[in-house]
Amino acid sequence: MKYCEMTKEQLLAEQELLQKEYDGWKAQGLKLNMARGKPGKEQLDLVSDMLNILVDPDACESDGIECRNYGELSGIPAAKRLFAEILGVKETECFVGGNSSLQLMYDTVSKAFTHGLLHSEQPWCKLEKVKWICPAPGYDRHFKVTESFGVEMITVPMTADGPDMEMVEELVKDPAVKGMWNVPKYSNPEGVVYSEEIVRRIANLKPAAPDFLLMWDNAYCIHEFEGEFQPFPEILTLCREAGNPDMVFEYASTSKVTYPGAGVSVMAASEANIAYMSKLIGIQAISFDKMNQLRHVMYLKDKETTLALMQRHAEIMRPKFHAVLDALDREIAPLGIADWKRPVGGYFVSLDAMPGTAKRTLALAKEAGVVMTGAGATFPYGKDPQDSNIRIAPSFPPVEELKAAIAVFCVCLRLAAVEKLLAA
Amino acid sequence: MKYCEMTKEQLLAEQELLQKEYDGWKAQGLKLNMARGKPGKEQLDLVSDMLNILVDPDACESDGIECRNYGELSGIPAAKRLFAEILGVKETECFVGGNSSLQLMYDTVSKAFTHGLLHSEQPWCKLEKVKWICPAPGYDRHFKVTESFGVEMITVPMTADGPDMEMVEELVKDPAVKGMWNVPKYSNPEGVVYSEEIVRRIANLKPAAPDFLLMWDNAYCIHEFEGEFQPFPEILTLCREAGNPDMVFEYASTSKVTYPGAGVSVMAASEANIAYMSKLIGIQAISFDKMNQLRHVMYLKDKETTLALMQRHAEIMRPKFHAVLDALDREIAPLGIADWKRPVGGYFVSLDAMPGTAKRTLALAKEAGVVMTGAGATFPYGKDPQDSNIRIAPSFPPVEELKAAIAVFCVCLRLAAVEKLLAA
Repeated sequence: MKYCEMTKEQLLAEQELLQKEYDGWKAQGLKLNMARGKPGKEQLDLVSDMLNILVDPDACESDGIECRNYGELSGIPAAKRLFAEILGVKETECFVGGNSSLQLMYDTVSKAFTHGLLHSEQPWCKLEKVKWICPAPGYDRHFKVTESFGVEMITVPMTADGPDMEMVEELVKDPAVKGMWNVPKYSNPEGVVYSEEIVRRIANLKPAAPDFLLMWDNAYCIHEFEGEFQPFPEILTLCREAGNPDMVFEYASTSKVTYPGAGVSVMAASEANIAYMSKLIGIQAISFDKMNQLRHVMYLKDKETTLALMQRHAEIMRPKFHAVLDALDREIAPLGIADWKRPVGGYFVSLDAMPGTAKRTLALAKEAGVVMTGAGATFPYGKDPQDSNIRIAPSFPPVEELKAAIAVFCVCLRLAAVEKLLAA
Repeated sequence: MKYCEMTKEQLLAEQELLQKEYDGWKAQGLKLNMARGKPGKEQLDLVSDMLNILVDPDACESDGIECRNYGELSGIPAAKRLFAEILGVKETECFVGGNSSLQLMYDTVSKAFTHGLLHSEQPWCKLEKVKWICPAPGYDRHFKVTESFGVEMITVPMTADGPDMEMVEELVKDPAVKGMWNVPKYSNPEGVVYSEEIVRRIANLKPAAPDFLLMWDNAYCIHEFEGEFQPFPEILTLCREAGNPDMVFEYASTSKVTYPGAGVSVMAASEANIAYMSKLIGIQAISFDKMNQLRHVMYLKDKETTLALMQRHAEIMRPKFHAVLDALDREIAPLGIADWKRPVGGYFVSLDAMPGTAKRTLALAKEAGVVMTGAGATFPYGKDPQDSNIRIAPSFPPVEELKAAIAVFCVCLRLAAVEKLLAA
């Protein structure tokens, strides 16, 4: 029976039952974490052969480059080739960095503010106002970057196929709108894959700002956990064909392929952009860690080998997502108190609880020892106008712990909904 | 006989001789490089045992922290302990980063511009003018950082004991003077060690700017190539005692201890500064490469073990510096056309050629296949007002190549001096 169809008496009875169940969980003193898209130990152990792949000093050369010494700011050619193949771009369009694609993204925004981008009339710090398009729910760390620079963030709703493009097309007419965040494949948190039509409309935007910065965080480009690898539209080519060759910067990393703390990141953009950014980055660093780049090249080899590894990650991830989705189907679906998507890739399940109950649900979960991403985090400024969206990150806990965590979560979700209905 | 005492005829005869010698070198088609402070292959091979020090997945934990996964923004405690011991600071004053201390320095300046420092009234990008104290000759990459942010750089002469402090004390009375570059031990390029008195005067500065940024690049803090390790004054303590606890940021790295391209960097500052910067850096990165930090901790162990390794580097560096200094003593000293210092640590020999001959000397060297740091590079904006200072970097070439390179250099130096005197 749906909660909205219950009488007050039925709701009170349900509340009593749930409270007992909740107290039972609480008494167990659980310590469970579904907060971040952090790979689990089994995934880390998958790639242990990388640890001893580069132990011979004579093997530290790659294409004639001594990887132990200074130099090669934009990365070793072999690493560029690997990422170029995976992303479908040219080797000359790749800048291979350190262990963090977030750092490359932050740097791009930071340099836009301090130095300006290739087509900027002036550094953004000289501007009265900088506005930014934020499809939401979205990635909290993206929003934190633009918030940190004092950008005015404009929320654009996500549809099942990507951001609401009519709104985006209207917004870019404002020259103060300088950029847009995107996670085009298995978006964080909803797992939405931008449709080819929407990708094309984005590539064909006609922004008033000559230095509009299309941030294309392809974090989950090879991260299917159901089924085979799904090819994705190549955004650099589409932008070039649309007459916007320098509008887009694409990012990816091996954080969820090899080691989250010790992977390799890449930034892909037009050759003109790579040349411009390399000049600026050359002031800040002599080079990134080429030894780790070489380790990755030796271990991942090529796209085919990398995709085979991703299937092994999928085998670990799949049962975790099923544990979450099965519990939601069983415990929540009949009650009509929440909606959620069924992603086939990425790292999250995004759930829309009854409006006004997300914060309360997560507070209850926390009290019972289940830590989750804070309510509102998936919206600019950390403020969900509906207090409804909740991001579930099933990757880190072992399946048995995850089952307990999601059981607790379901009780909290129900309890918060009953409370809300009783207060109405 | 000194060149300045020669008659025109003697100079012409000397020129003819030198030209023949120079043409002989040129005909050899040499390709030699004394441009950058890049460790040589022998030094890279010294630390090959680090390559297989971390091959067991179960060994990737440190103080209970899983180094393969996300987290620990400010570095693993074991790496903080190692650097704290080497720098003589507290573990809580250390932020351990990625492979580049230059990147940490750039980031500090960049964040001063975009967000402001702990005691800034506003971000520096909002200010009309930012001025900066640049002891010179100095490190070209430092000057490039401040130049890149549009800072007005003020040259302060270096003495045998450090920067001219009377000038520095006067300059900091201007609230627009926001910072100062320093390489306090074995300065780049002169190899000057700041005297304890000068370090104390610097710590006791009373800058008008509340957010004055004392950049303390302790790049060569354990880099003696003659004799034993020399202790150095601990700047964080001195600044704290002088009532300037948050004025200084100290930097170091293992770039010239283990691998130049794949080392570990550290930033040391007051706990208040580390807390403030960590909050800002937390927007830009989840964590740095903890696996590489752990490798370094396992390999370098502690200060004693690290200093023993530095003595092995010294054995490789010493003959190279001797080759340069012996050649200068033999070929140049009797002619009275240049002065140089005799450093006992660091990576450079700084030579002051006859004013107006540095550019010409380096152009001649380049034509003969010997690449050196560009003339002027050791001064702000790359402009040496005397056209005199030349930085010699002997570390990279094998001794035999180095001997050829310095022989060519001596001929070029002499030829440029003769030309200059003849034109006078």
